[in-house]
Amino acid sequence: MKPSELPAVIAIHTLQCLRQQAPLVHCLTNEVVQTITANTLLALGAAPAMIVEPEEAAQFSAIADALLINIGTLCHQRATAMLEAIAAARVAETPWVLDPVGVGALHYRSNFARLLLTMNPAAVRGNASEILALAGITSAGRGVDSFDDPLQALPAAQELAKQYDAVVVVTGALDVITDGFRTWQIEDGHPLMTRVTGIGCALSAVAAACCALPGERLDHVAGACRLIARAGRLTAAWATGPGSFSTGMLDELYRLCGENLQ
Amino acid sequence: MKPSELPAVIAIHTLQCLRQQAPLVHCLTNEVVQTITANTLLALGAAPAMIVEPEEAAQFSAIADALLINIGTLCHQRATAMLEAIAAARVAETPWVLDPVGVGALHYRSNFARLLLTMNPAAVRGNASEILALAGITSAGRGVDSFDDPLQALPAAQELAKQYDAVVVVTGALDVITDGFRTWQIEDGHPLMTRVTGIGCALSAVAAACCALPGERLDHVAGACRLIARAGRLTAAWATGPGSFSTGMLDELYRLCGENLQ
Amino acid sequence: MKPSELPAVIAIHTLQCLRQQAPLVHCLTNEVVQTITANTLLALGAAPAMIVEPEEAAQFSAIADALLINIGTLCHQRATAMLEAIAAARVAETPWVLDPVGVGALHYRSNFARLLLTMNPAAVRGNASEILALAGITSAGRGVDSFDDPLQALPAAQELAKQYDAVVVVTGALDVITDGFRTWQIEDGHPLMTRVTGIGCALSAVAAACCALPGERLDHVAGACRLIARAGRLTAAWATGPGSFSTGMLDELYRLCGENLQ
Repeated sequence: MKPSELPAVIAIHTLQCLRQQAPLVHCLTNEVVQTITANTLLALGAAPAMIVEPEEAAQFSAIADALLINIGTLCHQRATAMLEAIAAARVAETPWVLDPVGVGALHYRSNFARLLLTMNPAAVRGNASEILALAGITSAGRGVDSFDDPLQALPAAQELAKQYDAVVVVTGALDVITDGFRTWQIEDGHPLMTRVTGIGCALSAVAAACCALPGERLDHVAGACRLIARAGRLTAAWATGPGSFSTGMLDELYRLCGENLQ
Repeated sequence: MKPSELPAVIAIHTLQCLRQQAPLVHCLTNEVVQTITANTLLALGAAPAMIVEPEEAAQFSAIADALLINIGTLCHQRATAMLEAIAAARVAETPWVLDPVGVGALHYRSNFARLLLTMNPAAVRGNASEILALAGITSAGRGVDSFDDPLQALPAAQELAKQYDAVVVVTGALDVITDGFRTWQIEDGHPLMTRVTGIGCALSAVAAACCALPGERLDHVAGACRLIARAGRLTAAWATGPGSFSTGMLDELYRLCGENLQ
Repeated sequence: MKPSELPAVIAIHTLQCLRQQAPLVHCLTNEVVQTITANTLLALGAAPAMIVEPEEAAQFSAIADALLINIGTLCHQRATAMLEAIAAARVAETPWVLDPVGVGALHYRSNFARLLLTMNPAAVRGNASEILALAGITSAGRGVDSFDDPLQALPAAQELAKQYDAVVVVTGALDVITDGFRTWQIEDGHPLMTRVTGIGCALSAVAAACCALPGERLDHVAGACRLIARAGRLTAAWATGPGSFSTGMLDELYRLCGENLQ
């Protein structure tokens, strides 16, 4: 099953829905990327909120339109908040997305991520090493970088997607997005995106926002990947380094439209 | 009691005092906005410090010139540090400012914020929904955004100000600043300020710095609002999106002067 | 023993090694500076990772090439993670660097930093007040800013370096770097570097990356200081304030080369 390139019209539709619906995304994410995550959601018309005390996290997940769980700086206290938030989200039918940062090399988070997989995530977004690790396949990573090719992780992604009824996204030099039956591919983006911390994490938050939109979940999550990748490519055309790239990409996300997504 | 537009001369005076006194502000703030809060204070000539272990927080509040309490990502551990810091600040007569992020929708923080109100804050800064919630009036927010109009919250703000002897600030499309007897209004700023996370939170830190200045507290806090709003408007005149806006606003704050505040 | 100005060729060599080796730096740093720390490492070709749960922190320190310990927002929980990470780093012979933020004025962190000093750091980086305080000399700081001159702290730095077999760096209007026997000095940089939060903290992370490089540790750590200082000066030549400076400096770090380091 060879992946097909995502048509621009799908990403354009996702963008329109995001701006119209302005989903409120509850982000339980890592310490390093909170600002870029919030600002990426805001640039696309969505609304972020970070509510971390377990009692409040549960209350808020039921109010929010979507929930993001990112385990980059997982600690016991935050793990408790995540479990409470996911439990409340499931009762309220709030979709939630898992970003399994660093899964594979590190035991505590690997066990935690495998537990979370059984809790019905709407989508999972990782690099090839992380998705391979989630599927039980040892990879070349040291917990943060991926030395694996997204296409190499595609069979594992498709199996995970079927097993857990989730959209699975593998990002890297190209992105693949699958529900286990259909698979989209996106060749866009730019290597400068790896020289700024948090762009992958921010994408996971946008994917969560997109899971709250009416319509086909697979298409909207693929649309999210395309929006980020396209903004990255547009920014790289004029940025003079990773600093101007990181703020410039927020400008390009804000200015995305039917024309520059084509 | 109709609010009057703040004269430029007051904001100019506040800016001069800030740069001369360089107040050291102890910030116990939320996880998402720490960098923009520190950089906003630095751009205006003040000095930030984030000291979070309860024992040290208490020691430091007595050394600092002002204390900011922002409950955006409140957790039990941080709540303890906040209570210790406030207690020490009161003994040392260090003024402190409350930013009641998300009060209303969420129970844990709402109870905590109402407790803090009784601990003699020099100022309180929130959006209309938050100020209405503090006053016990149900509003339309979901805990982060305000769907209420600042002028609509003015009577509640004035009542809170009198009851707790605090300057109360309601920010939004326009800002109102009141001590319950006199009320300033500021029509400035720009909608792009809501597309970047943390500008309201950073304003609260600047308000705390201003409470440490000699002179009229109401005027200095209103001056703080005007400095931020004016920098926002100046930046929006040339920014190409929320990314260039967020760094550009720090540049404009740094370059504020008598001339561009007029 | 008068310090000598660091020859450009040493910084150029350090930069080449950094980009070739791409050391993975485990950062246990403060809440405020995590993003700028990660982005500074990335801009120079190194790789950051923030792993904070004590169990994982220990596991990861053995995998990483270097470890950074920054006590800016020290709390009991993070202190435990730091001790576990350092213990594992010592077993694995992973070099680690101490950034003793705010040591002197505050008791809890001062005691903790003195304990850490006995655990064989490869390098220590602080401002003059912090280095003086580590050496047991009372200084003029309030825990965040330094009112002391780096050259004034040089004898204390040299004594600390000999006593603990560590490279000691004192940064400020000029930087001094010593192993107790040889001392480099760097006159570069720009005052705007003090109007952005986290540049000193980011330098400490780069110093950690440099301790993982093959060759002379003193020279590589001095090289790190020169890379940051030079990027600061290059950026200040065109930045219009601290906002454009903070992103611009990442661009300049990314573009550093033999030519502009001369």
